[in-house]
Amino acid sequence: MKGDQDLYTLQPIASLTMADQVEAQLHEYIIKRAIRPGDAIPKEQELADALGVSRNVVREALSRLRMLGLIDSKKKRGMILTRPDVMKGLERILHPAILDEQVRKQLFELRLVLEVGLGDLIFARKTEVHLKKLDAIVERERKATTQIEKIRCELDFHSTLYEMAGNDTLKRFQTILLPVFEYVVEYESKLQHTSVGSVTHADLVKILYSNNAEEFPNAMRKHLSPHFQHL
Amino acid sequence: MKGDQDLYTLQPIASLTMADQVEAQLHEYIIKRAIRPGDAIPKEQELADALGVSRNVVREALSRLRMLGLIDSKKKRGMILTRPDVMKGLERILHPAILDEQVRKQLFELRLVLEVGLGDLIFARKTEVHLKKLDAIVERERKATTQIEKIRCELDFHSTLYEMAGNDTLKRFQTILLPVFEYVVEYESKLQHTSVGSVTHADLVKILYSNNAEEFPNAMRKHLSPHFQHL
Repeated sequence: MKGDQDLYTLQPIASLTMADQVEAQLHEYIIKRAIRPGDAIPKEQELADALGVSRNVVREALSRLRMLGLIDSKKKRGMILTRPDVMKGLERILHPAILDEQVRKQLFELRLVLEVGLGDLIFARKTEVHLKKLDAIVERERKATTQIEKIRCELDFHSTLYEMAGNDTLKRFQTILLPVFEYVVEYESKLQHTSVGSVTHADLVKILYSNNAEEFPNAMRKHLSPHFQHL
Repeated sequence: MKGDQDLYTLQPIASLTMADQVEAQLHEYIIKRAIRPGDAIPKEQELADALGVSRNVVREALSRLRMLGLIDSKKKRGMILTRPDVMKGLERILHPAILDEQVRKQLFELRLVLEVGLGDLIFARKTEVHLKKLDAIVERERKATTQIEKIRCELDFHSTLYEMAGNDTLKRFQTILLPVFEYVVEYESKLQHTSVGSVTHADLVKILYSNNAEEFPNAMRKHLSPHFQHL
């Protein structure tokens, strides 16, 4: 499996620019030298000398690392390694308009997978405030008269579930994926025969008020079943 | 929720370099002008003129987009928008050694969530070949005598489940997360009182041979319960 992973990071040599190569060397340097967040990394000129490339190329590679949130420039201390922001690269590209139909479909499936599996985090961390928030959304949805209001309630409900899971990385991931979800929800709302899952938002809330985490995954599967039918 | 998402992309102005600003403008340009994969984007010099910045700054911003797999240079055609590789940014930073303890914990939770929810994709796409592969791993695990062999089987088993789900983005995500999983598995294997879930790999395979998708989520929850206890 290590092997599998390494393959993904390989690129045909011909397509690698100088900046690509320097970037790859810097990643390796950081890992191999066990540089830790907060540690300084060598200066631009030192790196250029060590790698035998121009300072411009080094600057370009460092700029990428900065974009990923891997390094930061500190006054007086120069460049230091920072705690990388794991979602920074993702949020720059996940706009549904430029995603391939295939990838969009896969990300939507990923959402289904996440929501079916979300129960244990929610049960471990749910609060009364969260549950009241869900109640209010269900009530708003019941009174909604337009399709737009209903879609808004749908998205609010599911976003609140991620919030309840108390995992910032996961919540952030969902927020980044949201335009993809919105795209699918809007698309499906235009279908003539949109079926509705046999488990409603109100049913899910009832389960969340209980302490029966075991009921959650299959209730969510039923709730999402119209989407699963498109698999 | 749109609002939430926009907030994540905001940065204190003072910390934005010229390249950051040009990069942000290019993202906006691509979305607003509805540029599609395969379409050409303006040349370096044209962009520099339009933005009133040096060509070096434009080159730096373009280099970042290239790193994300958003643009590509084609001989004769100049730069074109490509189908972005959604995992490219992520795989550059997800090395457990440089991740914060908190983020590592959150990514591990994400794994638990994914595996509990994975059932429907697996049931929709499982093949005889996959099931035989799981059988072989279970058999190898039964005969394993060393801790290293057992960990290897553990990772192989779960990786195969992702493979069976037939979703490249998800599989790729798991592959990127693998070093984090390995880290946790190794850590847990050193604990004196590692409890074992009441549902074994062999039990999971039995469920997968059946056509009862409803049993999967709770069986996986029980299988992963020693991890859930750390929540």
